[in-house]
Amino acid sequence: MTWYTDPIANDAPIISARVRLARNLKKYPFKQMMTGKEALMIIEETSGAVINDRTAIGVRFKSQDIKQLNETAKKMLIEKHIISHDLLKPELPVGLLLQDDENVSIMINEEDHIRMQTVSAGDNIAASWELANHIDDLIEESVEYAFDKDFGYLTSCPTNTGTGLRASYMIHLPMLEKTGKIKFLIPAINKFGIALRGLHGEGTEPMGSIYQISNQLTLGKSEQEIMQGLQNVTQNIIEKEKMICEKMLEKHRIDLENNVYRAYGILSFGKKISLAEAMNLLSEIRVGFYTGVLCQPKLNKNIYQVMIEIQNGHLQNRIGRKLGEEECEIYRADILREMFN
Amino acid sequence: MTWYTDPIANDAPIISARVRLARNLKKYPFKQMMTGKEALMIIEETSGAVINDRTAIGVRFKSQDIKQLNETAKKMLIEKHIISHDLLKPELPVGLLLQDDENVSIMINEEDHIRMQTVSAGDNIAASWELANHIDDLIEESVEYAFDKDFGYLTSCPTNTGTGLRASYMIHLPMLEKTGKIKFLIPAINKFGIALRGLHGEGTEPMGSIYQISNQLTLGKSEQEIMQGLQNVTQNIIEKEKMICEKMLEKHRIDLENNVYRAYGILSFGKKISLAEAMNLLSEIRVGFYTGVLCQPKLNKNIYQVMIEIQNGHLQNRIGRKLGEEECEIYRADILREMFN
Repeated sequence: MTWYTDPIANDAPIISARVRLARNLKKYPFKQMMTGKEALMIIEETSGAVINDRTAIGVRFKSQDIKQLNETAKKMLIEKHIISHDLLKPELPVGLLLQDDENVSIMINEEDHIRMQTVSAGDNIAASWELANHIDDLIEESVEYAFDKDFGYLTSCPTNTGTGLRASYMIHLPMLEKTGKIKFLIPAINKFGIALRGLHGEGTEPMGSIYQISNQLTLGKSEQEIMQGLQNVTQNIIEKEKMICEKMLEKHRIDLENNVYRAYGILSFGKKISLAEAMNLLSEIRVGFYTGVLCQPKLNKNIYQVMIEIQNGHLQNRIGRKLGEEECEIYRADILREMFN
Repeated sequence: MTWYTDPIANDAPIISARVRLARNLKKYPFKQMMTGKEALMIIEETSGAVINDRTAIGVRFKSQDIKQLNETAKKMLIEKHIISHDLLKPELPVGLLLQDDENVSIMINEEDHIRMQTVSAGDNIAASWELANHIDDLIEESVEYAFDKDFGYLTSCPTNTGTGLRASYMIHLPMLEKTGKIKFLIPAINKFGIALRGLHGEGTEPMGSIYQISNQLTLGKSEQEIMQGLQNVTQNIIEKEKMICEKMLEKHRIDLENNVYRAYGILSFGKKISLAEAMNLLSEIRVGFYTGVLCQPKLNKNIYQVMIEIQNGHLQNRIGRKLGEEECEIYRADILREMFN
C-alpha cells in the first residue's frame, strides 16, 4: 500500500517518516568530475544491483526513464516527493528506480551516485530505516561503496558524509504556525542539528501548515543516534503543538470549530480554488479530524493524499492534458466538492 | 404582510420603495423652540388624528411608548428602519405610531412634529406614495399643517420644506460596488438632486452592497416630478448594474458562481460570523438567486428579511437577553446554518 493512502495518518501530527541514504560507487568519480559515459555505467550497475528476479524486493522495482516522461508525469513525481527538481535538469544521464508501491525510490546521479528514499505512513521511522538498510545491503552485494573507515560514507557534498542519512518526518503543525510560535522554534531546534522546513524542503514556503523536520548532521553519530535525536526533538515539538491545541479546545473551541467548519463549507461548495488556499483549508479539516470536532466517516481518505491529488501535475494527469492556472483552480474545486459531498 | 417578508424582493435590484413625509402643526412652534408641554400636546393631537375607530386604517395603528421600551426593542426598531437614532435621544417627549404590519410608521417630535413613512416591497413607489398620501389626508382632517402657499409645507430644517417628501428605494448594487464604479456614480447622480447612501442612511457604510437612493430636493417640484426623477435615475443605475452582471455571467461566470457558492458554504457551516461578513455573504446569495446561479427553493425567504433578523437587536430578542458581541456572532451563525441547511 502506498504510504499516503493510509487514512490512519489523519489522526496525529506526524504524517510520514522518511529515510534517505546518500551513497557513491567507489570506482567512479563524484558527480562534479564524472563523464557522461561514467554516468551511464553508474545507472547500469545500480539498476542491475536493485532490479533482479532473485530477491523478493528486486522484482518489485522498475526503472523509469526520466527523459521519456512528459511534463505532467515529471510534475507528479515531484508532487509525490519521489524525485527532486535537480533530477529534472541534469547535465549528465540520470536514473530513477521505483518500487511498485512508490514507497521506495532511488535517484541515480542526482547529487550523489545513489540517493535512496523510503517512506512509511505515520511516525514509524524504524520501519523506513529497516527498509532502507535492507536495500542498501542489497546494492552493496553488487557494488563497492565509497567508504572511509574514519569518515564513513563519502558523498559529493561534505554535509552528507558519514552516515549519508537524512531521517525526516513530515509533520502537521497548524497551531504552532497560527500562533506564530514556529518562527521561534526553528532557530531553537537548529542548535540540536535538526532543521524544520516547509513542505517541499529547503527554501520553500510551508503549505497547509505541513513541515519537514530532519537531521542536519550526518557525521560523528550512528544512524540510531541520529534517528533518536530526531525523535526526541520531534516529540518535544508535538507536545507543544498539542498543548496549544488543547488550550484552543478549552478556551476558544468555537473559533477552532468555526475555522474547521468554514473550511468544510468552502471545500464543499467552492467552484475555484488556488493550491495554497486548498492546502490551508485541508489543514483545517485535518485539525477537525484529529480534534474530533469534525467526523471523519464521510471522507475516508488520508488528507495528505488529497493534498497530493489536487496539485497541478495530478490534476493534469486526471484531465489528460496540460491545464492553465485557472483551469487547475476550477478542476481542483471540482475534485474537492466531489470528495466533500 | 410586512413588506420584507415577501420573497419576491429577491428577484430584482430594488428591495423596497419608501416614502417619507415631513409635516408640522401650524399652531405649535418648530421643535427648536417648543416646550415639553407643547411636545406632549403634539403627540396627543397627532395620535388622536391617526388612531381612531372610524376609519379602516385608523384601527390598525397603535401608539408605542419609546421610553417604556427596553434596549433590545429599541434596537429592533432601528434595525427595521422604523425609527431614527434621533428619536431615541430626545430632549422633549417623542411619540411613535405604528401600523400593525409595520409598513407605516409615524415618528412624532423627531426633527419635525410629524415624520410619516410608508414602505412596500419591490419597486412600487406609487403604492407607498398612495398610502402616505392617504394618511396625510387623514391627519389633515383633524389638524392644520404649517403650510405656505409659496413654499409649501414648512419644516424644521429648510432642506425638507416644500413637499416634505423623501422618496427612496432600497437597492442592491453588488456589481457596481465590487467594480468600484459606485464611487463615480455617487457624485454624478448628486447633480440630479439624488443621493446614494449606505444602508442606514447618511454617513453610514454600505453593508451587503445595499444602498438607499433618494431625492435631495423637496422644493420647486411636485411630488410626482420628484418620484419620476428618482425613478429615472434609479432605472439608469439598475441598467448599469445589470450590464456588469451580464458581462460577469458571460465572461467570468465561474468567478461569480465561486463567490455565490463559497458564501453558501460558509453560511451553511460557519460557527461564528460578524454582521458585516454575514451581510456580504447574503449579498452573494442574493446575486445567486437573481442570476439563477443558485436555486431559491431551499431558502424561500426574502434575503433582506434575513439581513434584518441577524442584527444584534433581533438576535437578543430571539434569545431573550442582552448578548455580547461574540455571543451575537455565534447565534447569528446558528440561525444562518439552520436557514441554509
